[in-house]
Amino acid sequence: MNREIIKKRINAVRRQLNKKKMDCLIVTKPANVTYTTGFSGDDSWAVITHRAVYLLTDSRYVEQAANLRRHCKIVERPGPMVGTVAKLLTKLKSVQTIGVEKSTPLADFEMLRKNIKTRLKTVANVVEQLRDIKDAGEITAVKKATQIAAEAIERTLRHIRPAITENELAGMLDFQIRKLAARNSFETIVAFGHNGSLPHHQPGARRLKNNDTVLIDFGVRYKGYCCDLTRCFVVGGASALYKKVYETVQAAQTAAIKLIKPGVEIRKVDTAAREVIAEAGLPVYGHGTGHGLGLEVHEGPVISKESKGRLQPAMVFTIEPGVYIPGKLGVRIEDDVSVTEKGCKVLSEMRHGTAKGVPMLRL
Amino acid sequence: MNREIIKKRINAVRRQLNKKKMDCLIVTKPANVTYTTGFSGDDSWAVITHRAVYLLTDSRYVEQAANLRRHCKIVERPGPMVGTVAKLLTKLKSVQTIGVEKSTPLADFEMLRKNIKTRLKTVANVVEQLRDIKDAGEITAVKKATQIAAEAIERTLRHIRPAITENELAGMLDFQIRKLAARNSFETIVAFGHNGSLPHHQPGARRLKNNDTVLIDFGVRYKGYCCDLTRCFVVGGASALYKKVYETVQAAQTAAIKLIKPGVEIRKVDTAAREVIAEAGLPVYGHGTGHGLGLEVHEGPVISKESKGRLQPAMVFTIEPGVYIPGKLGVRIEDDVSVTEKGCKVLSEMRHGTAKGVPMLRL
Repeated sequence: MNREIIKKRINAVRRQLNKKKMDCLIVTKPANVTYTTGFSGDDSWAVITHRAVYLLTDSRYVEQAANLRRHCKIVERPGPMVGTVAKLLTKLKSVQTIGVEKSTPLADFEMLRKNIKTRLKTVANVVEQLRDIKDAGEITAVKKATQIAAEAIERTLRHIRPAITENELAGMLDFQIRKLAARNSFETIVAFGHNGSLPHHQPGARRLKNNDTVLIDFGVRYKGYCCDLTRCFVVGGASALYKKVYETVQAAQTAAIKLIKPGVEIRKVDTAAREVIAEAGLPVYGHGTGHGLGLEVHEGPVISKESKGRLQPAMVFTIEPGVYIPGKLGVRIEDDVSVTEKGCKVLSEMRHGTAKGVPMLRL
Repeated sequence: MNREIIKKRINAVRRQLNKKKMDCLIVTKPANVTYTTGFSGDDSWAVITHRAVYLLTDSRYVEQAANLRRHCKIVERPGPMVGTVAKLLTKLKSVQTIGVEKSTPLADFEMLRKNIKTRLKTVANVVEQLRDIKDAGEITAVKKATQIAAEAIERTLRHIRPAITENELAGMLDFQIRKLAARNSFETIVAFGHNGSLPHHQPGARRLKNNDTVLIDFGVRYKGYCCDLTRCFVVGGASALYKKVYETVQAAQTAAIKLIKPGVEIRKVDTAAREVIAEAGLPVYGHGTGHGLGLEVHEGPVISKESKGRLQPAMVFTIEPGVYIPGKLGVRIEDDVSVTEKGCKVLSEMRHGTAKGVPMLRL
C-alpha cells in the first residue's frame, strides 16, 4: 500500500472531522479500515485523530499488520475491542469529541458509550463519501478484476458440458478465478432456465439441459478491489421471447450507459434503463439499476430512482438492468463502468457482453 | 423448512419477549431471520409479535419467499427497510414495546427511533441464545457438512502437485466442495511453510516446495449449516520442531475434548488446551480455543478464558488450539464437536485428523 495515498486519504478524513468539529473518528467498517490504513484483516478498527492513526487488531493479525507501522500505530488488543478503544482514548487527552461510524453494530456503540466518558457522536459516510471517487490505482484494480473475470468465464465456458449442475458450474468458474491468482468478490450465482427469474438464486442441483438458458452473476476480487458482472447465454437456440427480452435488456443497458457523464443526475441513468423495458411492454425490474463497487462489491453511488446526486468523474459502478418473468425466464446484463472527464468507460469489455444478439453456447 | 420446528422457535422467542415485557422483536441479523422464518436470502428482516411473524423482503426475494407463507406474512418492501417496518408497526395497534437486536447497524436503529413512535429497546442474544442449543436436525446438518468437507479434502489431496500455489490449492478444494453439491462456509485459508504462523493468512502465489508444510483451514456449508476445520500436513518429512509442535497441538486438542460434557465450565475447556502447550514450552495461541457454529460459522458459545457459562447438551463448537512461531511454522488442528447427554461427540472424524503423528503428503 502506497504511503502517499494513505496520507492523502487520512488528510481528507481529517478535513471532514474539522468540518464536523470532531477530534477523532472511530472507523469500524472493515472496508473503511482497509481504505484508511491499508490493513486487510478482520475484526480490526482504526482510530483517526488529528495527530495519529491507530490500528487496533488482535494477535492473529499483528504479524501481518507490522508492515503498516510506517503510517499507523499498531495496538494489539488482548480482549474485546471496546476496552482497548476506551483505554486508548483515555490516554489521548486532547480528544474531546469522537465520531463513530453509523455502520457500527448497536451493541458496540452502546458499549463505547458506557466506557468512554468523552462525547460520542454518530457519523455517516465520512470515509464512504471519499471512497465514492476512486483514484487511478483503484480504477485500474477494478479493471484488472474485470479482465480476470473475462478470462475466467472464457475458460469455464470451454469446459461446460450437458447435465452439469448449477453448483458445479459455479465451482468451475470459481476455480478458474483462483487459478488466475484472484478470488471471488461474492458468492457466484449460476441459474439455469427459469431459476434466472430469482435475482439472487442460489446455485443448486439443477442440471443443464438442451435448449436451456444460463445466467451467471459473479465477480472477482483483485488486490482488494471487486468487479461484478452478469452474463446470460442460451444453449442451443433462443426462444422468441428470450430473444426479445435479451435484446431489450441490452438496449436498456446501452441507454443507461450512453447517458453517463459528469454532472448528469444519477436518477436519470436509472430511468433511462427502465423506460426501454417499459416501452417494450416487459416487466420493469424491482432492484436498482446499479451500485458502486471498489473495496466492497456494494458501495456508493447507488443508481436508482431515489438517487439524489449527480455523476462525478472517477465514480465506478455497475449498470445492470434485468427482466424477470417468474416461472419463465430471467435475463440480467451487468457491466462495470467508470465516469471519465467527458463521459464513461465500460471497464468490463467482454466478448459475451458486447456481442449483438444472444450469446450462444455449444456443448 | 419444517413448520413445527419454526413454530417451536417462534414460541421460544415469544417466551423471551414475555420475560422482557416486550410485544415485538425486530430481527435484523440474517442468520436470526433464517432461524425464525426459514428464509435464506439477504437484506430481509423479521418482525415477531405475539400474534404473527412478518418477513420483510424486497422484489428479488418475493418469489423465493412465497413458500414460507404458511408460517409468515410476507411483506414486500418497495424502498428502504425502515420505512416498511415503521408502516407495519403503525398498523399493529397492540404493539407498545419493541425490541431491536443489538447487532443492528447504528444507522438503522437511529432511523427506526426517528420513524417509530413506540418505545424501542435494544436487546441482545434473544435469538442467539436459542441458537446455542441445536436441535437434532441442525446437528445432523453440521455433521453432514463435516463429511462433505472430509470427502472434499480427500479428493483435493489426490490432485496436489509440486509447485501448486496456495491460491490454486484453495480453489481446487472449493471446486471439490461444489462438486459435492455444497459450498464454502467461509473463504478457504491455505498457508504453506511459515505462512501458517498467520492464523488468518490469505492464500497467495507461494508455491509448494519439497519438504514444505501445508495448513488448510476451511469449511463447508450444507443446507445452511457450517462446519469449520483445520488440517496440517507435511510434504516429504517433518522437521523435529514441526513434529514436536504438531504432537503438542494434537495433545492440547485431545485434552480439551476429553473435558467436554454437560455442566463443565466452558473456560476450563479453554485452559485444558492451553496448559498442554505451555507445559511443552511452546508459545500459547492468542485466539480462543473454539467457537460455536451452525447457521453462522462463528456463533455461540465462545470457548475462551473469558467464557462464563457451562456446557449444555446439544451445543456445537470447534476445538482449535494452535502453535504459531513467526517466520518458522504454524500448526492448528480444528475439529467440530457436539455436547451429548454424557460427554462429547467429534462430528468431524477425518482420516487426517485422527491419525497419530504428522499426516504426510506424497506428491
